[in-house]
Amino acid sequence: MTSPRSSAFVPHDLVKPIVGAPTGPLTGLTAAIKDMYAIAGERTGAGNPEWLARHEPELRTAPSVRKLLDAGATVIGKTVCDEFFFSVTGANAHYGTPVNPRAAGRLPGGSSSGSASATAAGACDLALGSDTGGSVRIPASLCGLYGLRPTLGRIDLGGAMAMAPSFDTAGYFVASPGLFAKVGRVLLDGGAVRSGVHRLLVASDAFVEADAAVVALLKQVLRRSAEILPAAIEATVAPAGLAPWRQCFRVIQGREIWELYGEWITRNQPGLGSGVRERIAFAATVTADEAVAARRIQAEARARMHGLLEPGTVLALPTAPSIAPPINLTLEELDHFRSRVMALTCIAGLSGLPQVTIPAGRVDGCPVGLSFVAWVGGDEALLDLAVALAPYCGG
Amino acid sequence: MTSPRSSAFVPHDLVKPIVGAPTGPLTGLTAAIKDMYAIAGERTGAGNPEWLARHEPELRTAPSVRKLLDAGATVIGKTVCDEFFFSVTGANAHYGTPVNPRAAGRLPGGSSSGSASATAAGACDLALGSDTGGSVRIPASLCGLYGLRPTLGRIDLGGAMAMAPSFDTAGYFVASPGLFAKVGRVLLDGGAVRSGVHRLLVASDAFVEADAAVVALLKQVLRRSAEILPAAIEATVAPAGLAPWRQCFRVIQGREIWELYGEWITRNQPGLGSGVRERIAFAATVTADEAVAARRIQAEARARMHGLLEPGTVLALPTAPSIAPPINLTLEELDHFRSRVMALTCIAGLSGLPQVTIPAGRVDGCPVGLSFVAWVGGDEALLDLAVALAPYCGG
Repeated sequence: MTSPRSSAFVPHDLVKPIVGAPTGPLTGLTAAIKDMYAIAGERTGAGNPEWLARHEPELRTAPSVRKLLDAGATVIGKTVCDEFFFSVTGANAHYGTPVNPRAAGRLPGGSSSGSASATAAGACDLALGSDTGGSVRIPASLCGLYGLRPTLGRIDLGGAMAMAPSFDTAGYFVASPGLFAKVGRVLLDGGAVRSGVHRLLVASDAFVEADAAVVALLKQVLRRSAEILPAAIEATVAPAGLAPWRQCFRVIQGREIWELYGEWITRNQPGLGSGVRERIAFAATVTADEAVAARRIQAEARARMHGLLEPGTVLALPTAPSIAPPINLTLEELDHFRSRVMALTCIAGLSGLPQVTIPAGRVDGCPVGLSFVAWVGGDEALLDLAVALAPYCGG
Repeated sequence: MTSPRSSAFVPHDLVKPIVGAPTGPLTGLTAAIKDMYAIAGERTGAGNPEWLARHEPELRTAPSVRKLLDAGATVIGKTVCDEFFFSVTGANAHYGTPVNPRAAGRLPGGSSSGSASATAAGACDLALGSDTGGSVRIPASLCGLYGLRPTLGRIDLGGAMAMAPSFDTAGYFVASPGLFAKVGRVLLDGGAVRSGVHRLLVASDAFVEADAAVVALLKQVLRRSAEILPAAIEATVAPAGLAPWRQCFRVIQGREIWELYGEWITRNQPGLGSGVRERIAFAATVTADEAVAARRIQAEARARMHGLLEPGTVLALPTAPSIAPPINLTLEELDHFRSRVMALTCIAGLSGLPQVTIPAGRVDGCPVGLSFVAWVGGDEALLDLAVALAPYCGG
């Protein structure tokens, strides 16, 4: 059940690479794919061996994977993810936790853990992940990578397993800025709303959620890059606090994942790793009334964020509250980390807005990401911003 | 005298990026350039402020930089290097030591220190360096990057300051494998000798020079990737020991650098950092007779290596003997590190053969490179090998 390849790849990996088109913007580059996207002839595992065992090989290849192949990329492997994509830590009880190649002894983040691990190790040029509650943004931050959560719907999720469709997005990882932008232009569908970045909000209430050393580093990067950024304006994202936003995200996410997988889980009783098991159990308890109430809060959050972020305005915030946690945390400590994470990731999640994370530098030798959220369709502007900011990062 | 940019960039950096061709294999990607290559309108510093102060802006752009621009890359900055390229540590007494973004508190390696630092931090997609005695290979290994030292003469050194012309090569850094190969195909001039890799030698006497944990990791990667490599054959590189090879390299290098810079240094008495100062002082003492004797040993080394490495055969060895040394080493400890390094780097150096280093994994959380030396013109085969081996690396 082990692969000779790095811990980022699943045991049921491709037997040989799938070679992309001979000419295209990504020709010669290699891609790894999160084990939630269909690849024709391969089984999709969702991080759970029981799910893998009970499913037949896919008949079609997911459109986003197809886009990478058509652009010239060679798909070299399938990557480990958290079970049913329901974690931000990257710990998988069945396949092991992919190594964080940039922070020894620490978690890679999840749920797109293997995709981040492979990219950070230099095992591939780019990797496809997905982001519902932070599953690209968090591992990108913890592994020192560029990562995009696109505007809801702007990267095709056809052929990808769903998690919580109200929030599900495809996303990806790259280690360097220009290539990051280039891959984005391949994957993003129509709907770009072009604008330069004319206004910079700094999310005071989001910065409060992060460790002091993380805040100090990110503020320093913002100061150093002031020569290419608009003047920073402090702004409060959620006047009534981020806690209700995080809570409504959790309720809707639970409701939707149970609607998708509850019946299968009840029938097949798959072994689930600790943490995921408890979250799935919580998901089963969410009532329709709770979901309706949560959707009301989501609508408010969404209206607030769309109001703040008109075309041309971006919002800076910490991607994650801390560096990567150590591998050996207790379940309680992991829950605390998750809870802090979700206060930050729910902002783009609830509002469907695009968010980019860039590798800003190091705290205690471990990577820290700086995020920017933009307007609907502002994905390309965020990619350009990442390229412009790159030389100011890295310490 | 400080730049708001990361520590990888020189204070006399470009005021604005030089935008590359609108269509090409590298369009949209960003490049950083070691401060030894001429960029029209900019002064070249060679890591020494006195040299910088006494030179006028360049009239022409170096052909290798021009190639990157013509291929579409945007040049975003000039990077710090060791003074007169005469060190493998990356410590620069005048500009500070560029951060090693993958090994906290440790040296980035040199002399192409800033180019490696910028690439490892994700500040750019690729960076041009140079390699005489290991100045690309060592920082690539210590910073967890892909790095190429090409066959002598296969990447144009026009417009680049010389160091020791018998050994000088241009080289470069990239963080991911497919892009690494792509950039190589842009930079390499004619002279490719195409062959698959049919025979794998493992340099026993080179492995002996490395720390046990480094050896264990590299041997593990070779074992894990056995499914795509020819059977490993143990081989002794230098039957009479690597010490005479290292010593003859040191003598020839000293002789050549003094021929190039001795007069200028004698006249201008520039402040030189410790270590570089002592090595320059040694260089001044090398006699013509010593150089002649050293050239005889070089000729033997060269014949030996060319005999071992016919087209189709590659040689595996550790890129560096250890992980990155801590920043605060004494001069004596740094000399010891340098001496161990040169026993490994002199192999390709003396023979003019191409060498690739790939980020194999981690020891004590710090990057370790695995190297392959190939035949004259085997550069492209090494790039393909790096891409094929990538998924087996990273832990």
